[in-house]
Amino acid sequence: MFGMDIEKLKKEHMNLPDKIKIFDTTLRDGEQAPGIALTVDDKIQIAKKLDDLGVNTIEIGFPIVSEGEKETARTVKSLGLNAEICGLARVLKKDLDALIDSDLSYVHTFIGTSPLHRDYKLKMSKEEILDKSVEAIEYAKDHGITVEFSAEDSTRTEKDYLIEVYKAAEDAGASTINVPDTVGVLTPVIAKSLIQDLKKELKTPISVHFHNDFGLATANSLMAIEAGASQAHVTVNGLGERGGNASLEELVVSLAVAYDIDLDIDTTKLYNLSDFVSKLTGVKISPNKPIVGGNAFAHESGIHVHGILENTSTYEPINPEFVGHSRKIALGKHTGANGLKSKLDEFNIDLSEEQFCSVYDQIKSLGDKGKTITDADLKAIAVTEISTSEEEYIKLLGLAVMSGETVSPSATVKLLIDGEEKETSKTGVGPVDAALNAIKSLIQETTSIELEEYNIDAITGGTDALAEVFVVTSDGKGNKATGRATRDDVVMASVIAVLNSINKLLVIQNS
Amino acid sequence: MFGMDIEKLKKEHMNLPDKIKIFDTTLRDGEQAPGIALTVDDKIQIAKKLDDLGVNTIEIGFPIVSEGEKETARTVKSLGLNAEICGLARVLKKDLDALIDSDLSYVHTFIGTSPLHRDYKLKMSKEEILDKSVEAIEYAKDHGITVEFSAEDSTRTEKDYLIEVYKAAEDAGASTINVPDTVGVLTPVIAKSLIQDLKKELKTPISVHFHNDFGLATANSLMAIEAGASQAHVTVNGLGERGGNASLEELVVSLAVAYDIDLDIDTTKLYNLSDFVSKLTGVKISPNKPIVGGNAFAHESGIHVHGILENTSTYEPINPEFVGHSRKIALGKHTGANGLKSKLDEFNIDLSEEQFCSVYDQIKSLGDKGKTITDADLKAIAVTEISTSEEEYIKLLGLAVMSGETVSPSATVKLLIDGEEKETSKTGVGPVDAALNAIKSLIQETTSIELEEYNIDAITGGTDALAEVFVVTSDGKGNKATGRATRDDVVMASVIAVLNSINKLLVIQNS
Repeated sequence: MFGMDIEKLKKEHMNLPDKIKIFDTTLRDGEQAPGIALTVDDKIQIAKKLDDLGVNTIEIGFPIVSEGEKETARTVKSLGLNAEICGLARVLKKDLDALIDSDLSYVHTFIGTSPLHRDYKLKMSKEEILDKSVEAIEYAKDHGITVEFSAEDSTRTEKDYLIEVYKAAEDAGASTINVPDTVGVLTPVIAKSLIQDLKKELKTPISVHFHNDFGLATANSLMAIEAGASQAHVTVNGLGERGGNASLEELVVSLAVAYDIDLDIDTTKLYNLSDFVSKLTGVKISPNKPIVGGNAFAHESGIHVHGILENTSTYEPINPEFVGHSRKIALGKHTGANGLKSKLDEFNIDLSEEQFCSVYDQIKSLGDKGKTITDADLKAIAVTEISTSEEEYIKLLGLAVMSGETVSPSATVKLLIDGEEKETSKTGVGPVDAALNAIKSLIQETTSIELEEYNIDAITGGTDALAEVFVVTSDGKGNKATGRATRDDVVMASVIAVLNSINKLLVIQNS
Repeated sequence: MFGMDIEKLKKEHMNLPDKIKIFDTTLRDGEQAPGIALTVDDKIQIAKKLDDLGVNTIEIGFPIVSEGEKETARTVKSLGLNAEICGLARVLKKDLDALIDSDLSYVHTFIGTSPLHRDYKLKMSKEEILDKSVEAIEYAKDHGITVEFSAEDSTRTEKDYLIEVYKAAEDAGASTINVPDTVGVLTPVIAKSLIQDLKKELKTPISVHFHNDFGLATANSLMAIEAGASQAHVTVNGLGERGGNASLEELVVSLAVAYDIDLDIDTTKLYNLSDFVSKLTGVKISPNKPIVGGNAFAHESGIHVHGILENTSTYEPINPEFVGHSRKIALGKHTGANGLKSKLDEFNIDLSEEQFCSVYDQIKSLGDKGKTITDADLKAIAVTEISTSEEEYIKLLGLAVMSGETVSPSATVKLLIDGEEKETSKTGVGPVDAALNAIKSLIQETTSIELEEYNIDAITGGTDALAEVFVVTSDGKGNKATGRATRDDVVMASVIAVLNSINKLLVIQNS
């Protein structure tokens, strides 16, 4: 940027630590989010992938919470991963005992210190909180446990009391002082100033655990690191309580690219990990999620696609390969002539100027109607444009479906194929499957067709709500076509969508 | 925070403008994202809601792109909203003419200035770019158009050249100088320093348009405002090219809460707007999206719920009502005794200590298995616990379904209800509808049951993929129960789910 000398910036304006550690809490704070529940096996698989990525510490869970949590901790600990395995505990003997019982040797222990937490949640005095903290740290140290200590809600705690608690924790033997912005109220400048102040008072390495309630967690963590914090707590996809925590992928890429800092992380595994965690937790990622979202490296608008085709850096801050993602050129109402041309070249479709303009107009007009255009849609539009024939190859003449509890569902289908009536009956695991088996068997006599994709959009409403079916068929020679249908009967919608798609495929084949 | 005096901070460390304007570009940069295409009517509805929220400017689109874009601009302009209506244009006469033809009187015009954009995309010299910019601004001014000028990719442009271009734009009559971080490479400190430098050179108000590729757009915009920028471009839900733009809701709430700054925005309408835009664009919001996500004010873990029940501020930075959202207490493996107790109280369910422990254990164990627990699930678990009866009220004895092309689908169902065999046949719009009509008619003879919700999860795979059906039934007396079933036959899955739910409902009724 501006030919700015990052090294000079670092020297003059930052107090960067020698080494920055990434502490991942996807499996603890991330899992704590409502609606997420991972099985023991899920957690083990994610822990392995986190280790493979190169995070320094994995917070595996909160052992006191359930037997499953203890079992997970024990199993992951026994894997002998490179990453340290940490567990959460309140400053309570029973919590620490549960952690010890899980074979862990690294605790992240905490107690609330803000007036709100003291008065309403804990109903304890400042002194009691300080004493309990010291007691717990000493108990853990006596059992050979490494201690990371958090003053929960530290960012709403009186600063002199906060320093007093942290100094006591340091003296009691804590190896890391963690600073949680429990409800995410920090701004970047205040985050930096807080860590600068703490650095002056403490000798122990400082870690930050920042929540994202105002969308500032990653930025606040970076500012804390500029001030000398040597560890940041993060989660994959920014999962966590409420608005989540600082995102692993955002923090790591920012440090690597914008700060030119070496971490132990293999960034090319970030996308795969994000996708894996999204699947196991069931928390879908918005397309506009930085780094890992479906649109992070996707381009549709004419101006952007034109730039990307000349030099990808014009509209991308990093190459998608850097994070294991991939580039996508999409079509829609903002598509320009350059984007469309490059797509048609990709499919080896050659159009006259007049045909090109017609296809271009059709895409724009579909866009104005609120439709998105897939590659298969474009192919079908373009091929229909150059095809001279207008006949519908296959037509539905009749359909009857039967299903019951003790016999397999069956379907009878009558089709007009190339002018010839054909009829057959087939069974299937369900009525839709039976109907499609019958269609396939009739068409297979003349041409080879495979159902590549079958998708019913989620139906919500009554049982008379519309079912929208989307299919992709292929002919085994590299040609594919999409089909769509919306009906109140899911079986009819499926049959019509498949026939629609097969007809398009035959147009492509015969062009 | 720390009893910090925000007013003092502002005076000593910030150069805040007197008034901050919110420039919303959801309908331009937001819509430009791949996969989003809004109809004319969609855009009009969103524009009205943005105006109602109180944004100062609405960038309505890019008129040269399509006829639909022009029509939208013309229609929205004619509504006479409070917000100014702006359109995008390259520094080209044809783009400006399209904007004038759309009846707009405010243009956001731009040209790339970075070496990458000059050499690869525009293939123009520094002088040509500067001349074209001035020419376009003068052309617009001659037509009575207010001009906001952007040097695209400004953050990767040589700083002296950037200042030269902006000064020329200022001299040519631009009313606002906009600074786009086109590929989102700024960090907070560099953002602040850039705007500080520009403020020294320019008299014209400075605006920022920051992309979110590294997750820093909101923070960078706040830092720019601290340095004196008086306008920020934002989008609802952070939509926009790739990782999107700074989020309207994040920026507005940060300014209002963390900076204590008055805006013209009615924050209580933020959640509703976010939800509306999500529905019309089809872009789902992750539950951990700050401010507007489904989990932004949701709590499951025992410690958090305990705090929230004592004082909501313990684990919330702001009240959900401030943004028109609502609080949610969820159940799962992290649930503590306090959370469970408050939920049971809410449902007026009184359990003995033994029963309470059993329900608590069941919830924890479902959590360990990776299940989430809805309110209806809890009610069913609790009521089953106190119910002495163990009989299954309704049992499926037989089912046959027929559907075809010319006659309505029909279903015959045989049930065992309270020990008595009953059978009937009904038609419906589809086979599922027919089967449920038959069940309803048999049960209606003894008790009143309504199907409140019917949901099939999206099915992807072959037609033999499993269909997961989720239903909620109610008895018209305020009791509800859920039912779930997974089968490869969607009709069977629906029937089993409904019977499962009705059986739970009858347990609740008879308890």
